[in-house]
Amino acid sequence: MRIFEIGEFGLIAKIAALIESKSNKNINPWKNLLIGIGDDAAAWKAKDGIELITTDILVEGTHFRLSYTGWYDLGWKSIAINISDIYAMGGRPQYALVSLAMPGLREIENVLEMYEGMIDVCNRYDIAIAGGNISASDNVVINITLTGMAENSLMTRSSSKAGDLIAVFGYPGLSAAGLKALKEQRNLDPESMKLFKNAHLHPEPRLDVGAKLAACGVKTAIDISDGVLSDLAHVCEASKVSAVIHTKDLPVHPQLKQHFEHDYIDMILTGGEDYELLFAAPRQVMDTVIDVMKPAPTIIGEIITGKPGEITIFDAAGKPITVDSRGWDHYKRAPSNG
Amino acid sequence: MRIFEIGEFGLIAKIAALIESKSNKNINPWKNLLIGIGDDAAAWKAKDGIELITTDILVEGTHFRLSYTGWYDLGWKSIAINISDIYAMGGRPQYALVSLAMPGLREIENVLEMYEGMIDVCNRYDIAIAGGNISASDNVVINITLTGMAENSLMTRSSSKAGDLIAVFGYPGLSAAGLKALKEQRNLDPESMKLFKNAHLHPEPRLDVGAKLAACGVKTAIDISDGVLSDLAHVCEASKVSAVIHTKDLPVHPQLKQHFEHDYIDMILTGGEDYELLFAAPRQVMDTVIDVMKPAPTIIGEIITGKPGEITIFDAAGKPITVDSRGWDHYKRAPSNG
Repeated sequence: MRIFEIGEFGLIAKIAALIESKSNKNINPWKNLLIGIGDDAAAWKAKDGIELITTDILVEGTHFRLSYTGWYDLGWKSIAINISDIYAMGGRPQYALVSLAMPGLREIENVLEMYEGMIDVCNRYDIAIAGGNISASDNVVINITLTGMAENSLMTRSSSKAGDLIAVFGYPGLSAAGLKALKEQRNLDPESMKLFKNAHLHPEPRLDVGAKLAACGVKTAIDISDGVLSDLAHVCEASKVSAVIHTKDLPVHPQLKQHFEHDYIDMILTGGEDYELLFAAPRQVMDTVIDVMKPAPTIIGEIITGKPGEITIFDAAGKPITVDSRGWDHYKRAPSNG
Repeated sequence: MRIFEIGEFGLIAKIAALIESKSNKNINPWKNLLIGIGDDAAAWKAKDGIELITTDILVEGTHFRLSYTGWYDLGWKSIAINISDIYAMGGRPQYALVSLAMPGLREIENVLEMYEGMIDVCNRYDIAIAGGNISASDNVVINITLTGMAENSLMTRSSSKAGDLIAVFGYPGLSAAGLKALKEQRNLDPESMKLFKNAHLHPEPRLDVGAKLAACGVKTAIDISDGVLSDLAHVCEASKVSAVIHTKDLPVHPQLKQHFEHDYIDMILTGGEDYELLFAAPRQVMDTVIDVMKPAPTIIGEIITGKPGEITIFDAAGKPITVDSRGWDHYKRAPSNG
């Protein structure tokens, strides 16, 4: 059987099962491991607190095209998307490693411009670039590893319970709008274009959002990389619960609705690459979060008992609806975000 | 200017200078960083000891070809080469992250076979696979990140001093012999073929060699990935010293000499991908190492004062010689090890 037949998440499940069954768990690294495969970052116990580590690969043609992605933004984004993973665990980032594969014919200036973006995002989020490696290849591949620490308790995907309210920060869908506008070379007003483009090419995780949520008592979070629905489904699968979402409660950015009036709900629910946090918490904790964190997140639904991973969406009239696709799977649909 | 014009190490120097000049060093991750860019692994202070982290990318066509590399060995080697980096710092590995980019048309069985190799090498060296990510791409790319801990003091590239003796473990050149035999489809006796092939496709770092060397008092080490000469040059550049090597002192595997009688010295000096440690230490420390560690390493030369990075090689007759190439640079010569 081939990979695309079971998709990214089917393959990860098989790999996780193999590692689970064949690894010698009788060693200290396994004993200290708190969170392994299947969350935004891995986590283990250390004397200083809980250590976090996450890694993400960006492949030219799959994740970005140099025709509309500048080198500076590419560098910025490559690290920003990993910061979002550390935040989703309730941690703060510390060290970045940059693994780079590039054709030898590329200009040195391009590489240095990319590093300028990396250095700026690291300065902004208090990260030290500690190392990496460089190698030849036919296309550009950037793999970032980011470490972090969580002082408070962890946030995970597997801790949500029936009755928890579901909320998101910011305006999901703006990144998808940026991708569409760039790929289709849409002629939008400069202000909208800038909004959408920045959301896609230059994501800015909310400074320290994860540690703040964890300090409020939130136990469940995920970053929106695959899309609201897909990432909520990851939470529901890991927590063995279902969820209900009401489209009338979704945060709709007015410019998104204006320029994509027919599909903005779909884009909010399945667009992906927003790098905002989606989280779930009991009413009392949610009240604290909304009180403490400004701008406040938007409550979009709730966790219920039911089939693990199942999400029911109600439209403005209260009717259950289906959407085109649940979100991003690297193999289940063609790489349309390339 | 293009990357191939200044090569891998020229590019790394420019990147390191940029990071050095533009990073905000006034944050804790920078303050705690002991070793950044330019060694086998990054290192920083933590409460438990010294934390280590290294990363390495393997790109199909550049680093391996699936025509002669089995999936199991590919998985084994991808992690083994990172273990060697952690050992070179005097540490022990702990957690591995696997970042994988693969075409969706690949067989699931291939991926799982690769993970079998990863799991086996992790079981052998007490490593937990803690996470990773998977993505689509046109060719196979594997990026491994490996963390580790050093309890004793670190070994680095920058600590060697004039008068130190230089030694290597094992028989450098066997991996190069494996690559040649595989690429040229040489018809060798099965025993030699197995020896060379395993050295190249299934490297087995000496269990715990780094921590043992550090415990003996060794301060300077590097793993032989680029080649004996190139890696010794990295040590000499970082330590601002020169070195002398005598070819009569090199460890020559009899089967290497038998099958590659014209170029075995070159292969030992510049072959690369041996994943054995090269280290330097004062006479007294070297005596301890040779006494304690079996099989003992071979002394091949010594560190002298002189132009940083310069290496002089004397042949069996005591005449200075030059060799074809100093070793592996991903851009300075064509990717001949693909």
